[in-house]
Amino acid sequence: MSSTRQLRLGAFMRPVSIHTGAWRYPGAWPDANFNVQHIKRLAQTLERGRFDAFFMADHLAVLNMPVDALKRSHTVTSFEPFTLLSYLAAVTEHIGLVATASTTFDEPYHVARRFASLDHLSNGRAGWNIVTTANPDAALNFGKSTQMDHGERYVRAREFYDVVTGLWDSFEDGAIIRDVESGIFFDPARLHVLDHHGAHLDVRGPLNIARPIQGWPVVVQAGSSEPGRQLAAETAEVVFAAEADIGAARRFYADVKGRMTVLGRDPDHLKILPAAFVVVGDSIGDAQAMRDRLDSRVHYDSGIATLSSTLGHDVSGFDPDGLLPEIPETNASKSGRARILELARSRQLTIRQLAAKVGSYAGLAFVGTPVTIADQMEEWLMTDASDGFNIMFPFLPAGLDVFVDRVIPELQRRGLFRREYEGRTLRENLGLPRPPNRFLES
Amino acid sequence: MSSTRQLRLGAFMRPVSIHTGAWRYPGAWPDANFNVQHIKRLAQTLERGRFDAFFMADHLAVLNMPVDALKRSHTVTSFEPFTLLSYLAAVTEHIGLVATASTTFDEPYHVARRFASLDHLSNGRAGWNIVTTANPDAALNFGKSTQMDHGERYVRAREFYDVVTGLWDSFEDGAIIRDVESGIFFDPARLHVLDHHGAHLDVRGPLNIARPIQGWPVVVQAGSSEPGRQLAAETAEVVFAAEADIGAARRFYADVKGRMTVLGRDPDHLKILPAAFVVVGDSIGDAQAMRDRLDSRVHYDSGIATLSSTLGHDVSGFDPDGLLPEIPETNASKSGRARILELARSRQLTIRQLAAKVGSYAGLAFVGTPVTIADQMEEWLMTDASDGFNIMFPFLPAGLDVFVDRVIPELQRRGLFRREYEGRTLRENLGLPRPPNRFLES
Ligand SMILES: Cc1cc2nc3c(=O)[nH]c(=O)nc-3n(C[C@H](O)[C@H](O)[C@H](O)COP(=O)(O)O)c2cc1C
Ligand SMILES: Cc1cc2nc3c(=O)[nH]c(=O)nc-3n(C[C@H](O)[C@H](O)[C@H](O)COP(=O)(O)O)c2cc1C
Repeated sequence: MSSTRQLRLGAFMRPVSIHTGAWRYPGAWPDANFNVQHIKRLAQTLERGRFDAFFMADHLAVLNMPVDALKRSHTVTSFEPFTLLSYLAAVTEHIGLVATASTTFDEPYHVARRFASLDHLSNGRAGWNIVTTANPDAALNFGKSTQMDHGERYVRAREFYDVVTGLWDSFEDGAIIRDVESGIFFDPARLHVLDHHGAHLDVRGPLNIARPIQGWPVVVQAGSSEPGRQLAAETAEVVFAAEADIGAARRFYADVKGRMTVLGRDPDHLKILPAAFVVVGDSIGDAQAMRDRLDSRVHYDSGIATLSSTLGHDVSGFDPDGLLPEIPETNASKSGRARILELARSRQLTIRQLAAKVGSYAGLAFVGTPVTIADQMEEWLMTDASDGFNIMFPFLPAGLDVFVDRVIPELQRRGLFRREYEGRTLRENLGLPRPPNRFLES
Repeated sequence: MSSTRQLRLGAFMRPVSIHTGAWRYPGAWPDANFNVQHIKRLAQTLERGRFDAFFMADHLAVLNMPVDALKRSHTVTSFEPFTLLSYLAAVTEHIGLVATASTTFDEPYHVARRFASLDHLSNGRAGWNIVTTANPDAALNFGKSTQMDHGERYVRAREFYDVVTGLWDSFEDGAIIRDVESGIFFDPARLHVLDHHGAHLDVRGPLNIARPIQGWPVVVQAGSSEPGRQLAAETAEVVFAAEADIGAARRFYADVKGRMTVLGRDPDHLKILPAAFVVVGDSIGDAQAMRDRLDSRVHYDSGIATLSSTLGHDVSGFDPDGLLPEIPETNASKSGRARILELARSRQLTIRQLAAKVGSYAGLAFVGTPVTIADQMEEWLMTDASDGFNIMFPFLPAGLDVFVDRVIPELQRRGLFRREYEGRTLRENLGLPRPPNRFLES
């Protein structure tokens, strides 16, 4: 039995886990963010499960929270994405390798080059998660005293994308002829100089690396504010969405795909993958007990700190057993803030309850058996709430192993997920077209 | 038999070879700068030969030469160093991995982080070749209309080094205690905020990665102008020198080590490794014939272009059979220009002859049998002309294979080179001390 519509699955690999209690869970590897042997094992398990991509998050500062909370967080140290994913390219064969790179704090020449290099090294498996970096502390590490304005960050991101993709097109496919007899290494008529001059960037080119195997590495995006959605509709091929319930997810899905239609893009050329925290048990009660046990490993200080940083406002001084007062809007992530305010209002949660929720994991979660989880995923897929998921494992390695050993086979049995990789590249596996070279467009 | 003084050997791995004719040599791999399987094989051969380091050169623009010459050059495309070396970290165990990174066109937070990540991934094998980027075309790829002045580039390089090493010290060794019971991941008293404010850079820190395995990755330098030498004396642990004859090399060696003594640094804590082009044959005549055959694969246009770019002045319009006229000084590499002017003057070479020399390889070359090459290396080592060499192979893979199969055993027989790696890290193999954390210095 096979269905035409299938799930796409990414794995969101914040070191150790997204969950700040995970390093303390029984059987966890608390040293996983130093120990590349552990991460190699995780990547190989994902590949055995036929995951589309290993997705590496990235942050350009130690998290902006008070040190008493920070000291409890395993996320203060992490491998850098390009180095880690290049290492993984050598020990895997099929899985996509998606690195996060910031358009606010990097140079397009570097970014274009590193992704092109990763794409050549991995034989066409690179993807670029475009972020504009919401953490205001990052600015201080890059010679700026204040964070660039939210809207301006997205204007720069759009221009940055144009430059990077233009640099990837510097050499046409096949431009490098390597004719040993005549001594001609490449055909100069097929080398193009971008010569970009824009509001934020001036970049001449050409890039000093051949066009990537995929033409362009797959473009991924995770911003969900108004300009974030527009950027996705204009440029992205995968979106990591953050909607926590199916209704909101359907509205997001319709909104972004609708924007694509307006722009003349085929909505099939963008895969929307909400982030989903998945806890697998023998019964729903069993899975919920695991989740409760995990949540109990999060200290109150960590919860308050995560809440403060998501809101962009320090709430540690307020009465923990009172409701959240008015919080001024800041320059940080708008959508994260809005989601918490909505949660606080709709359920009338105290600050202590909010901190417990946000400090563990407040987003979309599938907590149940392989069958109930597959049921939910199928419902999301079949009702245009998503094209798949960006899976977050509650603890590692056990949370990943059980997903691959029990949930994946259930999805495969229903025809909802591949049994073998279809293509050679990430782009082919995702069913995305190869972009034409801009210098050849009529 | 063993001598106390031993050679240190790096391998200078410009893709395919430093020699612009190499991709056309019989048996060469013209596609090596796309084909990571080839480079993996080269790295594993170097490791079998007990080389200290795989050294990856880097350039931030397509070479600045006219397109009619450029089209003959295999160096227009190359893997990016961090991605390539991280890949190689997964398929090697002992060899050092030295990446070139520019202090003129990158951010210290990124550079510190990528090297720390590579050091953790490779279990202590990372090295940073600090360059200031002499190619004026690079500026145009990074939003600048003109190249930063030579002296100013070195002022920025010195400050950049201070910031990067300070960021590496953010977490003390052992700061990350991972106490699962109490839930404390790291000891906040052992996390330090750099808070650097200088003429070129403002960087707060801390770095979001644990202190590198080596404390600091090994610091390498290749600039040989006056400020280049001073930077080396102040900061470097390895210098890739460029002197072509033994007398000049001894003067360079004495100069840089003398500067260290003045600064209170132990001269043993810096290894001076001149770049050496090595052609191995069954007789000296046989080796010279190979070299001539290789040189004959370089087209006149390529030679003229290399000559122009090294001089920082287009000489293609001059009479090829006349002498070189006065060439104005430019903002590019001063030492490269000086070496060519000296060559032209001392041997009264025509432009055509100069182009042939520079276009192939004009620097130090050992062309002979395993015995004569070992003799020369021994003389350099024993007379304070060098502490070893940064080997350039004339063509690949054959030029490397023969070096490892025939020259290395001859050096080992004489007690001039290791038979097994002495240590676990690059720093240990080079015999360099582990740097203390600056925040713990009294
Ligand atoms: C699944 C997911 C992963 C994300 N990963 C990163 C990341 O690695 N680095 C980062 O700076 N931001 C990351 N973000 C944040 C987004 O880039 C974005 O800033 C955030 O969703 C807020 O949207 P906005 O910027 O449009 O306001 C992620 C968001 C989601 C939903
Ligand atoms: C063996 C060797 C390797 C070098 N590798 C690089 C490199 O990869 N990238 C680069 O920009 N410059 C490289 N250089 C150039 C030096 O960094 C430096 O610019 C040059 O030697 C001129 O010295 P100066 O900058 O002090 O004038 C190298 C030089 C030598 C001798």
